[in-house]
Amino acid sequence: MTTPSPPLSLNDFQRLIRAMYFEKDSARGVDGTFMWLLEEIGELAAALRDGTPEEQAAEFADVLAWLTTIANVAGVDLAEALQRKYGAGCPGCGQLVCTCDSAGKP
Amino acid sequence: MTTPSPPLSLNDFQRLIRAMYFEKDSARGVDGTFMWLLEEIGELAAALRDGTPEEQAAEFADVLAWLTTIANVAGVDLAEALQRKYGAGCPGCGQLVCTCDSAGKP
Repeated sequence: MTTPSPPLSLNDFQRLIRAMYFEKDSARGVDGTFMWLLEEIGELAAALRDGTPEEQAAEFADVLAWLTTIANVAGVDLAEALQRKYGAGCPGCGQLVCTCDSAGKP
Repeated sequence: MTTPSPPLSLNDFQRLIRAMYFEKDSARGVDGTFMWLLEEIGELAAALRDGTPEEQAAEFADVLAWLTTIANVAGVDLAEALQRKYGAGCPGCGQLVCTCDSAGKP
């Protein structure tokens, strides 16, 4: 398929993941679902170490999907959370281009 | 501020995080940046255990921000990665509503 897709909004993705997995993941609960997220984090680390660009992209997608499903179970709107924390600039220094101390946590 | 914002696309957020942190994070590299992601994952776990809804939302935002900054350093387009892996349904069973075995990894 080469038809270009419209840009995927975070809201759309969160709804898509809810439709796919909510029933199963809400039954499993946050704790059990968090274990799957951690497994994907490990796979992302491995792919960043020696995966192809395609493998790396797929692992980023999996981490995002598991993070999103946990947000669904916890009742968190990801787009709203991002907007609130990062929409007005770096939460550390308040600047669009972060000027926090490099050694510190932005 | 009560002005409603347009929906945040993942592309917009990835560009925003690039503007804020790319210079610093590309100098730090993937390995050092990954450590920060893991710290945020730990904070998310703690917030899910006993944080307020606002604290939980803020920790989800932080995990997403660090994941996004690593994607920037690794040269991965997150929206494209999601579209490719999840845009046609569950990567396990191919269905919009996942029918994979509950004990298995979807």
